[in-house]
Amino acid sequence: MRKGIGYANIGDSFDDFILIKEAARGVASNGKAFLTLILRDATGEIEAKLWDIKKEDEEVFLPEKIVRLTGEINQFRGKAQLKIFTIRPAQPTDGVHVADFVEKAPVEKDILIEKLTEAIFEMKNPAMQRIVRAFIKKYQDALLTYPAASKNHHEYVSGLAHHVVSMLGIAKELYTLYPQINKDLLYAGIILHDLGKLKELSGVVTTSYTIEGKLLGHIPIMVEEIGIMAKELQIEGEEVLILQHLVLSHHGKAEWGSPKPPLIREAELLHLIDLIDAKMNMLNRALDKVKPGEFTERLFAMDNRQFYKPLFEEK
Amino acid sequence: MRKGIGYANIGDSFDDFILIKEAARGVASNGKAFLTLILRDATGEIEAKLWDIKKEDEEVFLPEKIVRLTGEINQFRGKAQLKIFTIRPAQPTDGVHVADFVEKAPVEKDILIEKLTEAIFEMKNPAMQRIVRAFIKKYQDALLTYPAASKNHHEYVSGLAHHVVSMLGIAKELYTLYPQINKDLLYAGIILHDLGKLKELSGVVTTSYTIEGKLLGHIPIMVEEIGIMAKELQIEGEEVLILQHLVLSHHGKAEWGSPKPPLIREAELLHLIDLIDAKMNMLNRALDKVKPGEFTERLFAMDNRQFYKPLFEEK
Amino acid sequence: MRKGIGYANIGDSFDDFILIKEAARGVASNGKAFLTLILRDATGEIEAKLWDIKKEDEEVFLPEKIVRLTGEINQFRGKAQLKIFTIRPAQPTDGVHVADFVEKAPVEKDILIEKLTEAIFEMKNPAMQRIVRAFIKKYQDALLTYPAASKNHHEYVSGLAHHVVSMLGIAKELYTLYPQINKDLLYAGIILHDLGKLKELSGVVTTSYTIEGKLLGHIPIMVEEIGIMAKELQIEGEEVLILQHLVLSHHGKAEWGSPKPPLIREAELLHLIDLIDAKMNMLNRALDKVKPGEFTERLFAMDNRQFYKPLFEEK
Amino acid sequence: MRKGIGYANIGDSFDDFILIKEAARGVASNGKAFLTLILRDATGEIEAKLWDIKKEDEEVFLPEKIVRLTGEINQFRGKAQLKIFTIRPAQPTDGVHVADFVEKAPVEKDILIEKLTEAIFEMKNPAMQRIVRAFIKKYQDALLTYPAASKNHHEYVSGLAHHVVSMLGIAKELYTLYPQINKDLLYAGIILHDLGKLKELSGVVTTSYTIEGKLLGHIPIMVEEIGIMAKELQIEGEEVLILQHLVLSHHGKAEWGSPKPPLIREAELLHLIDLIDAKMNMLNRALDKVKPGEFTERLFAMDNRQFYKPLFEEK
Amino acid sequence: MRKGIGYANIGDSFDDFILIKEAARGVASNGKAFLTLILRDATGEIEAKLWDIKKEDEEVFLPEKIVRLTGEINQFRGKAQLKIFTIRPAQPTDGVHVADFVEKAPVEKDILIEKLTEAIFEMKNPAMQRIVRAFIKKYQDALLTYPAASKNHHEYVSGLAHHVVSMLGIAKELYTLYPQINKDLLYAGIILHDLGKLKELSGVVTTSYTIEGKLLGHIPIMVEEIGIMAKELQIEGEEVLILQHLVLSHHGKAEWGSPKPPLIREAELLHLIDLIDAKMNMLNRALDKVKPGEFTERLFAMDNRQFYKPLFEEK
Amino acid sequence: MRKGIGYANIGDSFDDFILIKEAARGVASNGKAFLTLILRDATGEIEAKLWDIKKEDEEVFLPEKIVRLTGEINQFRGKAQLKIFTIRPAQPTDGVHVADFVEKAPVEKDILIEKLTEAIFEMKNPAMQRIVRAFIKKYQDALLTYPAASKNHHEYVSGLAHHVVSMLGIAKELYTLYPQINKDLLYAGIILHDLGKLKELSGVVTTSYTIEGKLLGHIPIMVEEIGIMAKELQIEGEEVLILQHLVLSHHGKAEWGSPKPPLIREAELLHLIDLIDAKMNMLNRALDKVKPGEFTERLFAMDNRQFYKPLFEEK
Repeated sequence: MRKGIGYANIGDSFDDFILIKEAARGVASNGKAFLTLILRDATGEIEAKLWDIKKEDEEVFLPEKIVRLTGEINQFRGKAQLKIFTIRPAQPTDGVHVADFVEKAPVEKDILIEKLTEAIFEMKNPAMQRIVRAFIKKYQDALLTYPAASKNHHEYVSGLAHHVVSMLGIAKELYTLYPQINKDLLYAGIILHDLGKLKELSGVVTTSYTIEGKLLGHIPIMVEEIGIMAKELQIEGEEVLILQHLVLSHHGKAEWGSPKPPLIREAELLHLIDLIDAKMNMLNRALDKVKPGEFTERLFAMDNRQFYKPLFEEK
Repeated sequence: MRKGIGYANIGDSFDDFILIKEAARGVASNGKAFLTLILRDATGEIEAKLWDIKKEDEEVFLPEKIVRLTGEINQFRGKAQLKIFTIRPAQPTDGVHVADFVEKAPVEKDILIEKLTEAIFEMKNPAMQRIVRAFIKKYQDALLTYPAASKNHHEYVSGLAHHVVSMLGIAKELYTLYPQINKDLLYAGIILHDLGKLKELSGVVTTSYTIEGKLLGHIPIMVEEIGIMAKELQIEGEEVLILQHLVLSHHGKAEWGSPKPPLIREAELLHLIDLIDAKMNMLNRALDKVKPGEFTERLFAMDNRQFYKPLFEEK
Repeated sequence: MRKGIGYANIGDSFDDFILIKEAARGVASNGKAFLTLILRDATGEIEAKLWDIKKEDEEVFLPEKIVRLTGEINQFRGKAQLKIFTIRPAQPTDGVHVADFVEKAPVEKDILIEKLTEAIFEMKNPAMQRIVRAFIKKYQDALLTYPAASKNHHEYVSGLAHHVVSMLGIAKELYTLYPQINKDLLYAGIILHDLGKLKELSGVVTTSYTIEGKLLGHIPIMVEEIGIMAKELQIEGEEVLILQHLVLSHHGKAEWGSPKPPLIREAELLHLIDLIDAKMNMLNRALDKVKPGEFTERLFAMDNRQFYKPLFEEK
Repeated sequence: MRKGIGYANIGDSFDDFILIKEAARGVASNGKAFLTLILRDATGEIEAKLWDIKKEDEEVFLPEKIVRLTGEINQFRGKAQLKIFTIRPAQPTDGVHVADFVEKAPVEKDILIEKLTEAIFEMKNPAMQRIVRAFIKKYQDALLTYPAASKNHHEYVSGLAHHVVSMLGIAKELYTLYPQINKDLLYAGIILHDLGKLKELSGVVTTSYTIEGKLLGHIPIMVEEIGIMAKELQIEGEEVLILQHLVLSHHGKAEWGSPKPPLIREAELLHLIDLIDAKMNMLNRALDKVKPGEFTERLFAMDNRQFYKPLFEEK
Repeated sequence: MRKGIGYANIGDSFDDFILIKEAARGVASNGKAFLTLILRDATGEIEAKLWDIKKEDEEVFLPEKIVRLTGEINQFRGKAQLKIFTIRPAQPTDGVHVADFVEKAPVEKDILIEKLTEAIFEMKNPAMQRIVRAFIKKYQDALLTYPAASKNHHEYVSGLAHHVVSMLGIAKELYTLYPQINKDLLYAGIILHDLGKLKELSGVVTTSYTIEGKLLGHIPIMVEEIGIMAKELQIEGEEVLILQHLVLSHHGKAEWGSPKPPLIREAELLHLIDLIDAKMNMLNRALDKVKPGEFTERLFAMDNRQFYKPLFEEK
Repeated sequence: MRKGIGYANIGDSFDDFILIKEAARGVASNGKAFLTLILRDATGEIEAKLWDIKKEDEEVFLPEKIVRLTGEINQFRGKAQLKIFTIRPAQPTDGVHVADFVEKAPVEKDILIEKLTEAIFEMKNPAMQRIVRAFIKKYQDALLTYPAASKNHHEYVSGLAHHVVSMLGIAKELYTLYPQINKDLLYAGIILHDLGKLKELSGVVTTSYTIEGKLLGHIPIMVEEIGIMAKELQIEGEEVLILQHLVLSHHGKAEWGSPKPPLIREAELLHLIDLIDAKMNMLNRALDKVKPGEFTERLFAMDNRQFYKPLFEEK
């Protein structure tokens, strides 16, 4: 059986290190203070209550701290909750690190950057290639650590690069089936489409939205960045406009944040490839947690559907 | 320059054989009868007026007849119209056939059936394989001649088989990228998903909807057919239900004709692959008719969008 | 005053037998285990908490068990809750049965089957009559016990048959007012329209959805069943197709689960009669629980409206 | 075969009196003036062109004039058109009257008023009865001649009264099936619900909307009228408010013109009965014009659907 | 720092008089009764729990009573809660009054009535002026105390009059910019548009909906009132109809409660001015509670948006 | 009576110069070529047919040419059409110019630029002032000639500047009523909000969309321009982001082209002021063309409504 809080069942006992993701103080009906903790490891997260706390507990059990904890998985209002028996802060000598409790892409950074470089190398249109290369150079570090979203899909370390590399794989195959596709344009669109998230999201561990992200969003941010980059590189020609259009339209519809729908073949494809990779990422991870004959939990970003794993699938 | 009525420009003269697709009698303001003809060849269609007709003309210029025609491409209310100078019915000695004036899939029937057989051969789940094999046997002839739709995409001879074979190509590639996919299930879903159209549509040359098509539609028709086929083959087990679900849900949403949305990973993929192939078919054919720097005509089935062909595309 | 938990008011004391519908274990802030019970009788249901339970309590107070309970109706977060003073499992000598705590149709099974038989007897079209008769024979037992839905309307024992018989009553009257109606077709449609629920729903006491129900739904299930039944009875002709259309379209709109809207006069009527009877069932039962001058609770299946009982209505 | 322009087929010759409904002057491409006439009898209407007219023709062939006409039914842009051979104004000696060319309810005025009186006589609640009686007295003449709408359903002389009387028939039957219904309230609601149309519509022969109808609509007009009538009759009590609510909510939804949805059982029923009678009126008349195996024309007020008449229906 | 519960922060201590708005009895997990209190002053409201209450407490701590309370602002499930240390009922000698704990318009009643009178004085159309004057006379007291809504905007004492006077201010300015506006009509529409709320809402302190408000709503109520008032004043002419239309259409769309959209220039303006004043009222009050660099709470009536206060704004 | 084609009535004769806006060749049923002309002056436009044309006519009667024309206003398919009696090209000696036939703002360019300068002068925030000043300098010429849209509102020479100046007028007045408004921000937002149209639209006389306009739209174009301008001016600070947000959100909703809704008070106001001025411009011009007691034509950009001019309005 797989290890980790994401795979725990009601009734399991727990005895391990775990990371505090959130901690909020409350007051119980008996007048005593308590902490509501959200705990996480690389496989998932769970709520726990720490009752009858003292002032000093509040200064110790803080977000981004690791604790050693024994307890039991209970059920509360239909959701799993970790009942705490003992809890203590981790010590330096315990040899545990925040990075161990955070989910990561299933592909190493080395491979990701290699695949990206390969794709850029395949491109023949010099305008597009230079723009893409300049952005990769500018943002390489962040691109290799940021998630692709704050939740829903690829919401893990290197998630954004993982998403881009998977999409490049689909693009390559579709190009062999539909040779009319302008591969350079599609590759460039895929690599650039979500780079605005590096400004829209606050960071890697506890990802939230920046003011800029809330007031503009990653799509207009990136359209502007392409314009500025092209100016700096003194690139002119329709390539710049078309790349901006690919980024602008990649959510597919005005209601979904694209003021223009895709009006270029490769823009339409970019939108569809984005959909496929995001959905496969969500579906594969959700189905991985259930047994044949069961339904997954509700997947919010897939219209709240619960997916079924047929009996003839092997776990 | 490409030949054919689909590529003709305003002002071109015309001197060739062409097929009458529709013919309707009218009476002009001078009290004389005329015929409105819809003429077609393998590349497109055009309207023409035949003025001052006699009784016997009406019996000669009938739908599905070929004519020899000279004239000129004019514009009328913003649409191209063929002005007729001379017209005569084709003679047996002219050596022209209806089949020459109908659009066909760009892939030969031999190849199509070979690709289908290969896919079925790859399948390992015996229940799915037997059901698919039985349907191919039952419907082989129709499957190889029917269009995939009465308009919009793959609306040509062998269009349905062409659509299925293209989709199998995408499925194969996605399986290499996402090995969690149940390939047998996805292949079976792709092959069966639109077979109900063989009952929904009236035929190949002038495709319209049957009563059964109008009152039930191809999705419920095919769900029922799978149930009956499984009964005949005495196949039991969840495979039958799951295949019915794939067919039922492949339009993706209730508003689009699927009473249940996809609730199986491969059902979601089937829906997405169907979208990609249908859209690429529409887009490639529409973009093929315009020059770089131009927009296509409005594509009804793609939210009435007009697509742009960038200047850096070579014609 | 009416007796039963559905009519109890805040502050009433309770001393009676009652059925456990659901039981879920929780852990209180003092660390002790408790049970959240959903209790029901034939008039309604109520939540209760059983605090400080022991291991053996969990094995005794199980769903579908009857208990003898004393307590008081309290209010908690705006909803009624039964505060437990004493509780014990019912004994065989208590002479109480699960069937006593389940709501039933207000019409006896004998009457229901008699009315159904009468309607079939009135039919003159042999194809329709034979199909309907065969289904009644095949499903008689289930039809007479199943609810019409898992909640909202006719959600009680024999609810489905009660719904069908009420609808036949409306159809009969409308036929006298609009003699153009094809009565045989309308009767057949009414009797068959919801039979797919016998496969969609899991059973009578704790009604949930089957896998088949979730992946296909009662409408496609029944369309297929009619096709198979007609094959078995060797019935051909448009009657089969039309009956399938009536079932397929009876939810009225694609968004509501009918891939085709009603396209036959009797299909439209079937949809409207279904609406009337479902709504009257919901409304009459909800208004029955309030006094003149009051509003009912929110009725979820009626757009969450609260209905008013005018002062001039007698209770 | 049925007689009348509504039943004429392409190719039929015509030789009869007919009423001019509309007449509009145009100028042909040869520079000569012509009239576009809309001609009607009690069964339907048809367009005709009167070519090469003189000044005096324009003063003779005016709306609401009857003409003697010979011609032939032709087809123009897919619609029937009456080609005129000869035309002359009807003379007093011809003995034809406008009333002969207007569609009328299939039930006589005597019967309609009798049925209305009967329903009022059955009512026991004095407040409701007095209000309804006062309105019938005030509006009897108009009620017995007005259509129920300017198009779509009951759009003929006495259409409003016919609609009301049909609805009373349905109400009576539903009351026997659901005795919880407050029959007085439902009857009163039915009789009053559309009386505002007497102010919303301009009249009987060429029905259009009044300024008041366009700016307020029949629903608010009638809510106000009930308030004023109750004041005049010095009736107080919740009956007035409830009747106003029934009128206000009878379109069912805000989008359909009811600022409040039905919140009273009888208001919901009024809405449903209104739907049934309007739809049966449209459907029966449309199906009456087609043969078994055919579809009706598109019915605008029924979501533009075309309805099918099964082969097993006798014409 | 501003004083009052609406400006309190988590951790603040509290020692002041405050008004009980709601009080509901509950039973805790230890079996003891408690009260959930909603407390308010002129700046906002907060929840508090009073644990372990006795029978007599329930008779003392009632809605609309003032209490003297010490405690601390805590957080519970993400919302502020007032933890009670001590609580006692206010005494007559404390010199506090309910009116001190209720929010009031920032403009005095004298000023409000003066502004209203001025506007009426400016009007030149006698029909409109007489109608408006009659309504002000009839409703002056209520108009000067009622809120404009039960929540969302101008939900305070004199809120309705404050809203009307602000709107008159906007109208006056727009008239100088667009002199085509009929000022009399616009003024009359503004003054009358929401007067129906005096019958729709129950009162000033704890504002809820009346039965009439729920079944008819303020718009149809006011349309009727204008009709009756015009009858009483024996005013005829299009002014009455147009004023009714302005009231009827001022919500702008059928979905928002206006069966007719604005079809008069001044009706469209009335709708827009209403929007502006309501939104500015909500926005200014919400932004007033946050610091530069922060977002407001979600504003339900503004599509649940959270508004940002830029860093360059001074508090 | 007002002069100009926009005020002409059916039956009027015409004898004046007029501008050809569009010219399209067709072939009549008699086989002869004709031209369909769209003719315009500063008050409106009308269609005309020029029958039996020769080759040389096609080279003379071209778009943007002025002609001298005599004829008569007729009606064709319900729309006005100008029947041509005589037509000749204007000569240099006729002393007529294209500019005479184009609609212009009712305010002179001098006044417009003066008002703009005044507003900028009032601004105190240096960052905003510098950005706005730089844009006015960059675009002054275009801003003073471009229309605000290709149709619907302010679609005339200097329309954009006229729209901006009107909006500044409203903003100034609202600021006096709601002093919480940040006037600098609101002024800056108004001046910049539609400047992207200078790149979105092709020009002044025959306004169409540029490729950039179709693929990006004026909103993202302007967001990018602000970013680039701020970089050039080396302006940092939240002002830049907030101005971009005002431009981005000024259409109010994602469906209307704003990927973010207004999240700043002044952004919400900008949206509302834009609505008011656009609507007043459409309404005033449409109402100006009808008499009291009439309805305007359908206004497409106002939900296709027809507005009524009350009888008590003076023409």
